[in-house]
Amino acid sequence: MSGVYLDYNASGLVRPEVQDVMAKALADNGNPSAVHAAGRRARARIETARAQVADLVGGDPTAVVFSSGGTESNAQAILSALAAGCERLIVGATEHPCVAEAAAVSGKPVEVLPVDADGVVDLDWLAGALRRPGRAVVAIHHANNESGVIQPIAEAATLVRAAGGWLHVDAIQSAGKIAVDMRTLDADTLTLSAHKLGGPQGVGALVSKEGAPIIRTLHGAGQERGLRAGTENVPGIAGFGVSADCAARDLPSSLAHKAWRDAAEARVKAAGATIIGGGVERLPNTLFMAVEGWDSPQQLITLDLMGVMVSAGSACSSGKTKPSKAISAMGLDHLATGGVRVSGGWGTVEGDWSRFAEAWVSSYEKHRARHPERVKEVA
Amino acid sequence: MSGVYLDYNASGLVRPEVQDVMAKALADNGNPSAVHAAGRRARARIETARAQVADLVGGDPTAVVFSSGGTESNAQAILSALAAGCERLIVGATEHPCVAEAAAVSGKPVEVLPVDADGVVDLDWLAGALRRPGRAVVAIHHANNESGVIQPIAEAATLVRAAGGWLHVDAIQSAGKIAVDMRTLDADTLTLSAHKLGGPQGVGALVSKEGAPIIRTLHGAGQERGLRAGTENVPGIAGFGVSADCAARDLPSSLAHKAWRDAAEARVKAAGATIIGGGVERLPNTLFMAVEGWDSPQQLITLDLMGVMVSAGSACSSGKTKPSKAISAMGLDHLATGGVRVSGGWGTVEGDWSRFAEAWVSSYEKHRARHPERVKEVA
Repeated sequence: MSGVYLDYNASGLVRPEVQDVMAKALADNGNPSAVHAAGRRARARIETARAQVADLVGGDPTAVVFSSGGTESNAQAILSALAAGCERLIVGATEHPCVAEAAAVSGKPVEVLPVDADGVVDLDWLAGALRRPGRAVVAIHHANNESGVIQPIAEAATLVRAAGGWLHVDAIQSAGKIAVDMRTLDADTLTLSAHKLGGPQGVGALVSKEGAPIIRTLHGAGQERGLRAGTENVPGIAGFGVSADCAARDLPSSLAHKAWRDAAEARVKAAGATIIGGGVERLPNTLFMAVEGWDSPQQLITLDLMGVMVSAGSACSSGKTKPSKAISAMGLDHLATGGVRVSGGWGTVEGDWSRFAEAWVSSYEKHRARHPERVKEVA
Repeated sequence: MSGVYLDYNASGLVRPEVQDVMAKALADNGNPSAVHAAGRRARARIETARAQVADLVGGDPTAVVFSSGGTESNAQAILSALAAGCERLIVGATEHPCVAEAAAVSGKPVEVLPVDADGVVDLDWLAGALRRPGRAVVAIHHANNESGVIQPIAEAATLVRAAGGWLHVDAIQSAGKIAVDMRTLDADTLTLSAHKLGGPQGVGALVSKEGAPIIRTLHGAGQERGLRAGTENVPGIAGFGVSADCAARDLPSSLAHKAWRDAAEARVKAAGATIIGGGVERLPNTLFMAVEGWDSPQQLITLDLMGVMVSAGSACSSGKTKPSKAISAMGLDHLATGGVRVSGGWGTVEGDWSRFAEAWVSSYEKHRARHPERVKEVA
């Protein structure tokens, strides 16, 4: 792709290895339920991918249910918890809309787990909420999609476990960027999405703890051991598997990308940007920043004209740029319409981050020169 | 693919044009909700595909909702009808399990619309059922996935329309094989699946009549005009669009395949096979046949060893071969474990059909010679 692509948290570029395995699967299509040779090859592709995906998160391959993506898998996790007897939901304030809305339409009471000024969930609040009656499903993402802020999942798990609750961890943004381990996180259910790992769009997975009763949300034939009806997306699943494999292999080097991010961050900060979640542990690939007086869409368009592709927080909307949920939940409403998310991935090089920083700083300086009334003095 | 592939009703081979467009989309991945150049290219791919899919069925592009496949779209159609006020469901006896089970779990009363000995729905029964109180959603597939028998949709639509009901037509098996036109069929909702058209697995669509109120079944962000949350599967959707385009282009020649099917059918019939739905209008690509005393799995394995890939009716199961739903519903229980479905597609040549017929007839003769006690005398 020409230009600087730093929007991996929205959709990553697809790894060449993934493109290869998908091309092979597409050229040899068969229905994995068929008994003939093409069907058996399709089945083998799925089972290979299942092991690869399980490996990435230290899960059991038999506990992986493939789906059409993170939205579907998050809903399946929440509905499974409710079917298993959870009577109420506790949902982090900065969860992805697909988690928040799946909870909202569930018909059960939903409590919002607040985050502090850094975007980290309030564990004292959680402990208090779990003491109230009613078995709860607690949904906390491992890392926020906008800010990259990492949540204290293992600590939350201890509280949830002690209360007999169900912990659902949306690890869609963290997987492949930091270590994700089902056992360390102690989640009942955990979700993944291929296109955040350098895999294709349209494929996700729910990984469950041994014994966690998962229910189907799509009904029909018996695919995925009866847990997800519909002919399997074999090329997509095969690509997901390879992306998981590559992500696991690249994890040490993706951690090294942090230095590039940090250097760019220092430059935009010096020029006047506020770094969202800058004081706490974040994904090494993510920079979420905001300014007052220069709205996100203007920033994005300016940067796009300079060949730099970034986004305004969550891209998962109908093309409209809304105030950032992560920023608002952190009590920074004055910055919520000026957020820019910059996120690297497997194909990112150091020069991408420096080109972004140059482009943003020079544009911001021009913007300030043109609109001195809108821009606060840089402290 | 080496060997004879005649299992297109399970999953078609993927057209080269589809493989090409998917490779391009995968090499240029972006999130279609992003405002940057890569995002806008992704968005354009989706909207091109939406017009292509709408064109295949004479629908309005704005009334196409992409999904992860036929199972999801069928469920969305049925749940939309119920949300719109339908109080009961009338479901054809030979519908795909994803329709039958979506109805069964809906919580509303379900009546089974019987089929006659040829597998055609009983319109007199339907007329009677529609006279009973309660607004009904009627689900009838355009063509049966196993037998290929084509249903009198336009006639059923007249009855449903007069009763103020909602007609849902699963056109997954008919699209690309015979003409499918939303206006002629007069359906409120109609569903499609890419992998039955020479497109990829994991992509489907719901097409609705103007004004039909569709509800979302996946909640979260605002994709698909708020009707289907989750990042769009851009490569899959692009492939779906091209497969629809190619299917429309190839429709005249796919009709010509009927002569090849008919020739093979005559040979297996002469050797003793019963042709399911042989007396009524069927898809031109499909041959569904059965014998007593030679179970489907044995037939499939024998043929597979000879390089001929076919299936035992619906492949959409957990790898198990069950008695055919279509055969049982037609009152032919004695044949229900001996069904074999042979189905061609865009890549099929005349020699594939003749190689199948030769392989099956010679195998059946050997089977009869080895097991004379199991096989009835050919009349």
